[in-house]
Amino acid sequence: MSSAPIYEATASAPVNIAVIKYWGKRDTKLILPTNSSLSVTLDQDHLRSTTTSRADPSFEADRLWLNGKEDQITAGSRLETCIKEMKRLRKETVEDVDASAPKLSTYKVHIASYNNFPTAAGLASSASGFAALVASLAHLYALPASPSTLSLIARQGSGSACRSLFGGFVAWQMGSDPSGSDSLAVEVAPQSHWPQMHALICVVNDAKKGTSSTSGMQRTVETSPLLQHRIAHVVPARMADISTAILARDFDAFARITMADSNQFHAVALDTEPPIFYMNDVSRAIIALVVEYNRISLAQGKGYKAAYTYDAGPNAVIYALEENVREVAQLILSYFPQTPGEFKDVLGIFSGAADVNAEAKVPEGFNEAVAKRFEVGAVKGLIHTRVGDGPRKLSNEEGLLAATGLPKTLV
Amino acid sequence: MSSAPIYEATASAPVNIAVIKYWGKRDTKLILPTNSSLSVTLDQDHLRSTTTSRADPSFEADRLWLNGKEDQITAGSRLETCIKEMKRLRKETVEDVDASAPKLSTYKVHIASYNNFPTAAGLASSASGFAALVASLAHLYALPASPSTLSLIARQGSGSACRSLFGGFVAWQMGSDPSGSDSLAVEVAPQSHWPQMHALICVVNDAKKGTSSTSGMQRTVETSPLLQHRIAHVVPARMADISTAILARDFDAFARITMADSNQFHAVALDTEPPIFYMNDVSRAIIALVVEYNRISLAQGKGYKAAYTYDAGPNAVIYALEENVREVAQLILSYFPQTPGEFKDVLGIFSGAADVNAEAKVPEGFNEAVAKRFEVGAVKGLIHTRVGDGPRKLSNEEGLLAATGLPKTLV
Repeated sequence: MSSAPIYEATASAPVNIAVIKYWGKRDTKLILPTNSSLSVTLDQDHLRSTTTSRADPSFEADRLWLNGKEDQITAGSRLETCIKEMKRLRKETVEDVDASAPKLSTYKVHIASYNNFPTAAGLASSASGFAALVASLAHLYALPASPSTLSLIARQGSGSACRSLFGGFVAWQMGSDPSGSDSLAVEVAPQSHWPQMHALICVVNDAKKGTSSTSGMQRTVETSPLLQHRIAHVVPARMADISTAILARDFDAFARITMADSNQFHAVALDTEPPIFYMNDVSRAIIALVVEYNRISLAQGKGYKAAYTYDAGPNAVIYALEENVREVAQLILSYFPQTPGEFKDVLGIFSGAADVNAEAKVPEGFNEAVAKRFEVGAVKGLIHTRVGDGPRKLSNEEGLLAATGLPKTLV
Repeated sequence: MSSAPIYEATASAPVNIAVIKYWGKRDTKLILPTNSSLSVTLDQDHLRSTTTSRADPSFEADRLWLNGKEDQITAGSRLETCIKEMKRLRKETVEDVDASAPKLSTYKVHIASYNNFPTAAGLASSASGFAALVASLAHLYALPASPSTLSLIARQGSGSACRSLFGGFVAWQMGSDPSGSDSLAVEVAPQSHWPQMHALICVVNDAKKGTSSTSGMQRTVETSPLLQHRIAHVVPARMADISTAILARDFDAFARITMADSNQFHAVALDTEPPIFYMNDVSRAIIALVVEYNRISLAQGKGYKAAYTYDAGPNAVIYALEENVREVAQLILSYFPQTPGEFKDVLGIFSGAADVNAEAKVPEGFNEAVAKRFEVGAVKGLIHTRVGDGPRKLSNEEGLLAATGLPKTLV
């Protein structure tokens, strides 16, 4: 008796941070946005979700474990939709075409997923998570599907997940078809186009849990008089302008538009009834530092050197070119000292300094009064990363499921 | 030898707090706004500017003392413009009409002004200050001018000052004439129409001096894409709707519009490049308390019971009807304890309790987790007041100038 084949695939997928923000759905079931958005994919070497999917005729139900803990796949849930859509693609593009292909679409799947960054960090894990899920199922099912096609399915798991199907600089085109068939991600430029784009993530301590983005954005759609103007008159031009800036590697324009769009997203959140606040006094202080840092540079005729952006939480992501990221980190350290040993200098900007706080330094001419100095813990973590590639297929040795079909961590 | 007559008048004028916000000038010299605005005049019994003006042929220059300290009247300044315009009115409407009227317009003036609230409280004193200046000069010059006519001049001192020429509920109509002749204040309803309208001012401690409103609003005009939409499509309807609400004594609609417009003003400030923040974490916490307080009331079918509004600073002004203001104060005290003895219970809501902090109490069903509890000093003062009347003529005994022509405090 020969052993049955194992149908399994493992993939990892990156986090992405939008520079033109997604805020508002025109269809909440299909997750069709009210405006296009654009993001930078961050390096999976530092932040990633990894997912293993296995199809087996012996499995009795579709099951999923996130960080070792089982998540229920409830009827009508986004998770169920994604798995169902991937099985449909398997059937229609593989099994219906090639009668010899195993009928994997009829098997139940077990899925194990793992994020290498703590949920408590407040970084959106749903984007990388759904992208890794879709990428692993695409490999499992040997789909002849493009990343854009897969992005249509990831979008239905979590809107911004569609942008994590590509590396580099990625646009989510809002589309116009009510079916959602043209609401998908496209690559604006690959990682290799502008590898000097780095990011410093400031993980901000938050006393209070904010409004979830899912409910918050719909309240904005329903109550903000300003959102409609943003959708119709502001975002289209910014999408075009920032794409041009990226293609021209024009950091100056990239920074200006990125900061303006972060501000405007938080402005429409504030214009919501009742108002939604995601930034706190620490977030505001980081903005003041970046504004002053740029002011000095602009006064010297050198253009912008850093660009902040904030998602639905108080964390700052500061984009800066590789040549300036050390200076930016030194500035942040001056106002936000770190717990010694916490910062992982994975890209070697401080050449392995023993205490990163010793690197604190403000640029010459910096007006130090623009913010007060905070205690250790106000910014509870700093993560240095850069633009990265799209989902990766990993080897079977890196799989998260044991022979039993349960996550290895549970075995 | 008979003594020369003394030409002197003293007036006081109230503070006003806008519910439809003024933010942006279409003409910075004439102070013509980009949109109409509407405010509630607060009671001068509690907050006021008092001004004495004297004209005398022996005076060698126009001079002004604010709180006992001389302010230079520089050429081309707003102060100079106001005094010049008032002299012009004196000449054209009095002296040119009645040849026997003394030629006061040719005399220099000495002006002493005093605010009964500390500048450090962060309450705009320019509105009440310019209104009191114009009112005292109008009495000194015995002008046959209406408050609306005087508001044209006060407006050129400080835009919002024009609204302090009336008591009650006051609209500043933006007008359309390039000369500014129709950009003036009108009474929407007098104090007596809705005397139950009370206000609780929460004076918030601010670590950092914010952007001045004069420079901030012009940056918004120049850089915010959202402001134009607010001006053209949002404010006109809100002006009409809140006027209707006031005339109908409809607190529910008044509160909804007031909070939405405060939010939108801060939204366009945030949409400015670089962004302007006036509210801090304490301001945000007060909003959370008011939102939750209203939520309970709305759930009971009772409508809104409180409305926050924020000007260009972190201080909250909470409007509430007389019957609810004690409950609002108890709620604020629960999260923001006061220095014992600081709160002046001038309207007797706590019947002279020894320690106002003992009155702290949250309403039944209130979700206490919506904000954290702060230390003494986060809200460094609470002022309870109500809708009030317009400028008052005071007696000569209340004058601020000594016989010498210098402020009494300097004598």
